[in-house]
Amino acid sequence: MSGSTFGELFRVTNFGESHGPAIGCVIDGCPPGMALSEADIQPELDRRRPGTSRHVTQRNEPDAVEILSGVYEGKTTGTPICLLIRNTDQRSKDYGNIVQSFRPGHADYTYWHKYGIRDPRGGGRSSARLTAPMVGAGAVARKWLAEHFGIRIRGCMTAIGEIEIPRDDWSQVEQNPFFAATAGKTDELEAYMDALRKSGDSVGARLYVEASGLPVGWGAPLFDKLDADIAYAMMGINAVKGVEIGAGFESVRQRGSEHGDELTPEGFVGNHAGGVLGGISTGQDITVNIAIKPTSSIRVPRRSIDLQGHPAQVETFGRHDPCVGIRATPIAEAMLALVLIDHALRHRAQCGDVQVATPDIAAARR
Amino acid sequence: MSGSTFGELFRVTNFGESHGPAIGCVIDGCPPGMALSEADIQPELDRRRPGTSRHVTQRNEPDAVEILSGVYEGKTTGTPICLLIRNTDQRSKDYGNIVQSFRPGHADYTYWHKYGIRDPRGGGRSSARLTAPMVGAGAVARKWLAEHFGIRIRGCMTAIGEIEIPRDDWSQVEQNPFFAATAGKTDELEAYMDALRKSGDSVGARLYVEASGLPVGWGAPLFDKLDADIAYAMMGINAVKGVEIGAGFESVRQRGSEHGDELTPEGFVGNHAGGVLGGISTGQDITVNIAIKPTSSIRVPRRSIDLQGHPAQVETFGRHDPCVGIRATPIAEAMLALVLIDHALRHRAQCGDVQVATPDIAAARR
Amino acid sequence: MSGSTFGELFRVTNFGESHGPAIGCVIDGCPPGMALSEADIQPELDRRRPGTSRHVTQRNEPDAVEILSGVYEGKTTGTPICLLIRNTDQRSKDYGNIVQSFRPGHADYTYWHKYGIRDPRGGGRSSARLTAPMVGAGAVARKWLAEHFGIRIRGCMTAIGEIEIPRDDWSQVEQNPFFAATAGKTDELEAYMDALRKSGDSVGARLYVEASGLPVGWGAPLFDKLDADIAYAMMGINAVKGVEIGAGFESVRQRGSEHGDELTPEGFVGNHAGGVLGGISTGQDITVNIAIKPTSSIRVPRRSIDLQGHPAQVETFGRHDPCVGIRATPIAEAMLALVLIDHALRHRAQCGDVQVATPDIAAARR
Amino acid sequence: MSGSTFGELFRVTNFGESHGPAIGCVIDGCPPGMALSEADIQPELDRRRPGTSRHVTQRNEPDAVEILSGVYEGKTTGTPICLLIRNTDQRSKDYGNIVQSFRPGHADYTYWHKYGIRDPRGGGRSSARLTAPMVGAGAVARKWLAEHFGIRIRGCMTAIGEIEIPRDDWSQVEQNPFFAATAGKTDELEAYMDALRKSGDSVGARLYVEASGLPVGWGAPLFDKLDADIAYAMMGINAVKGVEIGAGFESVRQRGSEHGDELTPEGFVGNHAGGVLGGISTGQDITVNIAIKPTSSIRVPRRSIDLQGHPAQVETFGRHDPCVGIRATPIAEAMLALVLIDHALRHRAQCGDVQVATPDIAAARR
Repeated sequence: MSGSTFGELFRVTNFGESHGPAIGCVIDGCPPGMALSEADIQPELDRRRPGTSRHVTQRNEPDAVEILSGVYEGKTTGTPICLLIRNTDQRSKDYGNIVQSFRPGHADYTYWHKYGIRDPRGGGRSSARLTAPMVGAGAVARKWLAEHFGIRIRGCMTAIGEIEIPRDDWSQVEQNPFFAATAGKTDELEAYMDALRKSGDSVGARLYVEASGLPVGWGAPLFDKLDADIAYAMMGINAVKGVEIGAGFESVRQRGSEHGDELTPEGFVGNHAGGVLGGISTGQDITVNIAIKPTSSIRVPRRSIDLQGHPAQVETFGRHDPCVGIRATPIAEAMLALVLIDHALRHRAQCGDVQVATPDIAAARR
Repeated sequence: MSGSTFGELFRVTNFGESHGPAIGCVIDGCPPGMALSEADIQPELDRRRPGTSRHVTQRNEPDAVEILSGVYEGKTTGTPICLLIRNTDQRSKDYGNIVQSFRPGHADYTYWHKYGIRDPRGGGRSSARLTAPMVGAGAVARKWLAEHFGIRIRGCMTAIGEIEIPRDDWSQVEQNPFFAATAGKTDELEAYMDALRKSGDSVGARLYVEASGLPVGWGAPLFDKLDADIAYAMMGINAVKGVEIGAGFESVRQRGSEHGDELTPEGFVGNHAGGVLGGISTGQDITVNIAIKPTSSIRVPRRSIDLQGHPAQVETFGRHDPCVGIRATPIAEAMLALVLIDHALRHRAQCGDVQVATPDIAAARR
Repeated sequence: MSGSTFGELFRVTNFGESHGPAIGCVIDGCPPGMALSEADIQPELDRRRPGTSRHVTQRNEPDAVEILSGVYEGKTTGTPICLLIRNTDQRSKDYGNIVQSFRPGHADYTYWHKYGIRDPRGGGRSSARLTAPMVGAGAVARKWLAEHFGIRIRGCMTAIGEIEIPRDDWSQVEQNPFFAATAGKTDELEAYMDALRKSGDSVGARLYVEASGLPVGWGAPLFDKLDADIAYAMMGINAVKGVEIGAGFESVRQRGSEHGDELTPEGFVGNHAGGVLGGISTGQDITVNIAIKPTSSIRVPRRSIDLQGHPAQVETFGRHDPCVGIRATPIAEAMLALVLIDHALRHRAQCGDVQVATPDIAAARR
Repeated sequence: MSGSTFGELFRVTNFGESHGPAIGCVIDGCPPGMALSEADIQPELDRRRPGTSRHVTQRNEPDAVEILSGVYEGKTTGTPICLLIRNTDQRSKDYGNIVQSFRPGHADYTYWHKYGIRDPRGGGRSSARLTAPMVGAGAVARKWLAEHFGIRIRGCMTAIGEIEIPRDDWSQVEQNPFFAATAGKTDELEAYMDALRKSGDSVGARLYVEASGLPVGWGAPLFDKLDADIAYAMMGINAVKGVEIGAGFESVRQRGSEHGDELTPEGFVGNHAGGVLGGISTGQDITVNIAIKPTSSIRVPRRSIDLQGHPAQVETFGRHDPCVGIRATPIAEAMLALVLIDHALRHRAQCGDVQVATPDIAAARR
């Protein structure tokens, strides 16, 4: 309601600001009895963590997660799991020059007008740093989805600025600093980013995320459609401006005879639907594209106004990502995991554990 | 949770199936004291209603709305408003041939597997007919938003299939059957649709919707971002596969120095943000694009399977929209209105009636 | 939120006013595949219905329920079930004399001040008539609870005014107009009520409700405790002023060695807990007592004020229950059923279908 | 939903276990701009804290609260406020003897069966220690309610075991270890408690809580009635078995002509309603009584079973409150504050800041 809780049955409540003492989240509704320790969560946080290459913010933050509750003798107890991440590298003096004016394209302006007060240190609550606890919560969700359904979630960057990045080799994603699912593109991307950083500007990106292994039947008619909840989750990630499911905007030009995925006893013939029909999972891969806008904190001087409404020029020094999209892949994966586990539990609530399926079709969709 | 309630403070609970006795909704949380009668709602329903031109389904349904509660002596009382629309033209025999198999691209398959039962008459609960009560609820929301904030919401079709439709004359939108905001394109569109209908196929569409007159400050950080809730609302409309706010997927190619809208004492210089920064309204126009897939119910024969998983060929006769996007403009407008009124009330809950703004900036954004 | 939706997973949204065209509710989240027709619901409505004896309001209302949605070929489809009850006997002129002033002890005063407007016809939204749709929804819940768990819910009146009514013969409950679970008390109660009615006054009552057959484990720690939700449900019934679970206020005087129910391999030895420990069901009977205040609409003249704040005398003629507690038993049973089904689904969501129990204890608690 | 979040608009999400590293809560939805520091919260925690007299548990826990987020330069920012309380005195070996069996009257049994796992250290999640963060959150709520409406909340113990405690001098409440609102009763109570402690047994208690200074109009019809939410909040406090609003169970014996509070131009003549009519505040004092059962952890040996269902004898040594009711007054006050602030915000959402009242009546109710 006030924006800090995600999910209905696997509820994640997020707290903290970029430069406060700590950030974290409380996960309520996690099924009991699942083995869980910090070691299950930390690797995902490390994928998102700043300072891992020269192409992302140089803030040096280990993002070490601590489980404060909800786990007893290495197993979830069904009660709230609190994840705490201490902020350790808070050079808020870096931001001194932006306290009195508003960065174009930044939440500075809207927070100030909504609340009449804002925490300007590192963007306060609007900082992308607040996605770290979600990546942590997502790691818990992914573990459960993998153990119970064999669901696998993965993502990659498919465009940065005007450069299209092929998606032809998933094994490459963790081998380059761009989450590119292709080989041989790294040099071009590095040169591009180096030039961009030198120019003091930033650039947008497009990501692709998918989930495999879902059963048929997750989701709900009308408003809590699986794809509607995915759109909500993705558009809630900092800087996201567009979301597509399956064929997305390509659907505009398609004929029904082309778009509608035919069925055979062996399963669906295509996946323009992106794994969702009528808001409910088909059992195929869930496929999502998202558009991420360029960072608003840039060195290039820009026109703005100060708190009194007078003209002001803004240049942001500090440490910023020239492309926030680079670190967004683990975030998008985590948010997708959080949507899926919530719908897994919702489906189980209404329809029970047993999957309803005629045997042949159940076989066909594997 | 189970998908039939939209909104948190202005809650709309939808019920009904395409060919049951009635459809409708219950609006809970409407502010008291607003003048309201069926005459405020019916015109919006008439815009969405089937049978208005040869380019939409020939189902002949007056969609007459009845207010069952929540209004006393012509004013809202603050208690639930029930809107009822009787179904009158239910030729469900038209659908007989699809009961035993699944239409490619349709929710037939997923409903069946989720629930183990489905109402096949006219698509049952998955029919776009269920958007009618939302258009009704949206009319209530629009009236309140207009009276309290002078907010105006409007939309138009900007592409159908491969035809791009300019957006250069809003006065035309209600003058043609396509919700096209341009003059002189009608003949081309009619010819296009006639040919399509003859071919037995269907086609996708793209719509644009905007809201003007918002104050700064509606929305919430992190998850209940105004744009996230818009994405959720839009992706929840039948057949929508993509949503953009502001620059949308264009943001991928933009530089930060281009995308971030500069501020002057006279206001923002551009609106790549689409009226939302950090999930909170900037006071500029909210701008949204959505992609709508082609109708899955087409006469062109398609491969599918039957309930036993055996191969089956499906052709859908009955009465269907060859482009569901045509009637979707009033729906998208209504859903946007429902998101806005909910955030208006949420903002008022946390921050009170008084807008927080430094005088100069407040002036600048008008 | 605005008060008209009950439950989280089995959500019932109520609408209507006492003298509007109709009252009803929408049930969202009902499990699919359950046989359901009006015949399953009407008998419960008939138990609550006015005009059944001379001891309740003489309003003559058949309260015929119509299922508008969510059922196909006699089975629930998992989509919203709308129950509609037309108001047929609306003699609102009876209430003319109370429009300009406030009945002592009635919601007239608070509605007027909250909303600045109220529907005075028959109490409008504050009428106990609005419990009828809940009794209808409760019938759906009871059917599911009975079929899936063998749960039985029943209630009776245990005191009316200063008369204590023994609870020694459940078979009597439906044999007298007072829901008294005893034989041979009817004459005394009838004489008492006749005298009361003649005096133009009203009186309070106490009810007892219980549920048998629950598994261990429904409920949740901290806030959504099973007993907290029961207290919420019961205190939400019109005129209820007190709720007890198990030993209730008797617990104040008890020692821990007396109150704490001992366990043996054959099961619990007592049930001071009322079937709930730590907010979670023990598998024993859920036992609840509620206190119902006397009706505020009485013929005895009372001091009050009018809308302008001037002194006014109020006498209520019309048709009123001299003891609203008499018709409240089916309501309390229904509300208990609605709490239980919601927790059944919540438990299934988090912990799955399988009951976790060591075999011996599981056997012991039957 | 899973039980750890309280409230809709002023949402408090609680986490932690009795003997884990920390307990705490996240408050989402707090209005921005209110001065707040640990010094506003700590005094309330100190009132509830263990070890303050020989009549409560000897656990020595400072319960020092730390604000982790949501406050900037001494003011609330409108974003989530995380309160953290480290657990420092965790002698969990004290509990070793109860790990293999279930304490009669304790949540041991139900947690084990619900989740198939439980944290037995100090009662884990079911410990009354988890009320500490709620007392902290309540302190934030009380500050806002006092500053915006002049609302004052207070409570006292009115019975312990068979001893009735008069309520005749509020100034005494903080002068004795029993929260007794009377002078000259302390010696009797101390002797009573000393004897009880010596016997190894425990005893129940009754508390009274009230709130003064509310405007007319908070609350909602039907389900989110102010009194229903109070009942929910109170019954959610550990060990509470009964709740009364206003006349409570006394209403059963009352006549309507006695119970219904008359109105005069100077205001209400009585307050049998307890400040709530039709679920909405009347502007009078909200008055609540609650019954608290005796502690289940006692030294007196009791029959029980072990995890395998075999007979076992249980004696609880450790450090326990012989009457949990003693420390419950600040908790009940806090929970009442949390209900009120939530309804304050809900009312503002639907009806705006301006109180709707005819001038005379508004004056009358002060």
